[in-house]
Amino acid sequence: MKILLDILGGDKAPAEPLLAAHRALSEDKELELVLAGKKEEIEEFFKDKPEEFARVEILEAKEAVLNTDHPATFLKQKPESSLAVAFSAMRHRDDIDGLVSAGPTGALLTGAVLSLGRIAGVKRPALMTTLPGGGKILDSGANMDCKPEYLVQFAQMADVYFQAINDKKPRIGLLSVGKEEGKGNELTKETYALLKEEKSLNFVGNVEGDTAFEDVCDVVVADGFAGNVFIKAAEGGALYATGLFKKAMKRNIFAKLGALFQMKGLKEAKAEFSKVVDACAPLLGCRKLVLKCHGKANALPLYNSICEAKRLTEMRMIERIAEAVKIHENPGNSPAE
Amino acid sequence: MKILLDILGGDKAPAEPLLAAHRALSEDKELELVLAGKKEEIEEFFKDKPEEFARVEILEAKEAVLNTDHPATFLKQKPESSLAVAFSAMRHRDDIDGLVSAGPTGALLTGAVLSLGRIAGVKRPALMTTLPGGGKILDSGANMDCKPEYLVQFAQMADVYFQAINDKKPRIGLLSVGKEEGKGNELTKETYALLKEEKSLNFVGNVEGDTAFEDVCDVVVADGFAGNVFIKAAEGGALYATGLFKKAMKRNIFAKLGALFQMKGLKEAKAEFSKVVDACAPLLGCRKLVLKCHGKANALPLYNSICEAKRLTEMRMIERIAEAVKIHENPGNSPAE
Repeated sequence: MKILLDILGGDKAPAEPLLAAHRALSEDKELELVLAGKKEEIEEFFKDKPEEFARVEILEAKEAVLNTDHPATFLKQKPESSLAVAFSAMRHRDDIDGLVSAGPTGALLTGAVLSLGRIAGVKRPALMTTLPGGGKILDSGANMDCKPEYLVQFAQMADVYFQAINDKKPRIGLLSVGKEEGKGNELTKETYALLKEEKSLNFVGNVEGDTAFEDVCDVVVADGFAGNVFIKAAEGGALYATGLFKKAMKRNIFAKLGALFQMKGLKEAKAEFSKVVDACAPLLGCRKLVLKCHGKANALPLYNSICEAKRLTEMRMIERIAEAVKIHENPGNSPAE
Repeated sequence: MKILLDILGGDKAPAEPLLAAHRALSEDKELELVLAGKKEEIEEFFKDKPEEFARVEILEAKEAVLNTDHPATFLKQKPESSLAVAFSAMRHRDDIDGLVSAGPTGALLTGAVLSLGRIAGVKRPALMTTLPGGGKILDSGANMDCKPEYLVQFAQMADVYFQAINDKKPRIGLLSVGKEEGKGNELTKETYALLKEEKSLNFVGNVEGDTAFEDVCDVVVADGFAGNVFIKAAEGGALYATGLFKKAMKRNIFAKLGALFQMKGLKEAKAEFSKVVDACAPLLGCRKLVLKCHGKANALPLYNSICEAKRLTEMRMIERIAEAVKIHENPGNSPAE
């Protein structure tokens, strides 16, 4: 099994991706990594780590893709960027199973669709992000303008994914502006009607932004625009509240003293928060695994994502999604229910 | 000047709306209020307050409109509900200037448009909600499916409103998923192009959900679906973070002791939060003033909304919006710029 890691992607490249690669290679003696980055930087980092370096293949890349690069043209404009060489290798080589990158979301998504292509029958691949509290939302930003049937397929793909990992069927909710069936825009109203008919899904109806953090569903389905607005607004709201609490805790010497007494609990709160930033977001529906890490990710979440890529490969996630999509698209082929 | 107050709307009706009415009448000896509610309840409440009751007119209503009532049909289904009698009075009487209600948003918005009608030239009235941090967002839920020209008009109406109240031009941002011009869905991309050309507006470009709380703009423009997702997700994120902090502060006896030292700061934080729940949301674009209060609003925000309705009437807000819309729709009629 070979996983490709983008060494130049994200705010903390190349240092943190290199640390993540080293940790993954030390802990799994079977693992082989392909690292897309600058040859001399990678060699320099591994010069006193020969055992791990023996399982490293370097894909020479000259530069990083930036947020300011256009997602649709970076493959041509920056053919020697780490993402461009990564996608080229993913496309042409059968021995690489997945890509982990903290690079720009737009470039990663567009590059994946253009280079790897979609699984047969998949209308639009979707990005699935973890919410505070542990729920999942898709699409969180890959597809700005969606049709109802895209959203239904997002739900089907998430159903397979969640079931494979958690060994139970997820409760699927539809992001809207009210719980009742008639609430929402044209897209969500049409999607609601279709999801209600999908007997293979555990559809629990509309969920609203403020209840999606509660334990009302496991997976929230949305178009990529609303999904992205949702996760960023939630992040903004959480940071706003955090700011108010921090201010209260630093108000004067007594408040600061009080915070000392709360150190342990505050650390736990911070860890709970980090879980969200640290969770990688898989792109569901492409022919190969693509895992997006937060741009601010340091070595730990990157390491976790490498492990996740291994795990998803082992459980044949791509094949599972392909089979599910095939059955949904051609219900006649499905086993009797 | 007469303001109409919905005595049966909201979770805390009729007690809190009655308290709000009493306070407003005690503090402003010129004010006259029309109260839509149950006659005996209102008379009972005011029986020892004759001075204020002298300036009360009762609009007899038998019941409240509920969240489960259909917004488009409650006027016919519940003709004796407080909102139905309120809208009927607003429509037929020139002496009532504005309506304040904590009733269901959908019913309030649909009822307003059906009963009061739009200002000439207004394509769609929009609800403007206050964000944590003090910014405004519109539309926050009145129009689920929007066209670019609706959003441009939302910006124009908000511009007039903000300028009248704050005596300076607001910075207008467009809710999207990235700062750059090309980011977003078809709606936001087309809207961006139109807003850029609106030289009368101070358009500052796209804003993202997580930056909208920061001081990047004064007014965020969005379609009603995305705007509603935004405010609810922000609320959900803030409540999630608050939950984590509260848990940390209650973790053990020491943490609780620490919280005692922080009491003052925590109270300030709570007050800052309440500002958002307490701010009323005006519906911009109808022929008469309609102010929506939070369903959980108690007497203070309801009282504030009555004051706000007075203030907006005094500054001729409806006429100002009507003039601005007319000038934008017929630029030839505008004074030389």
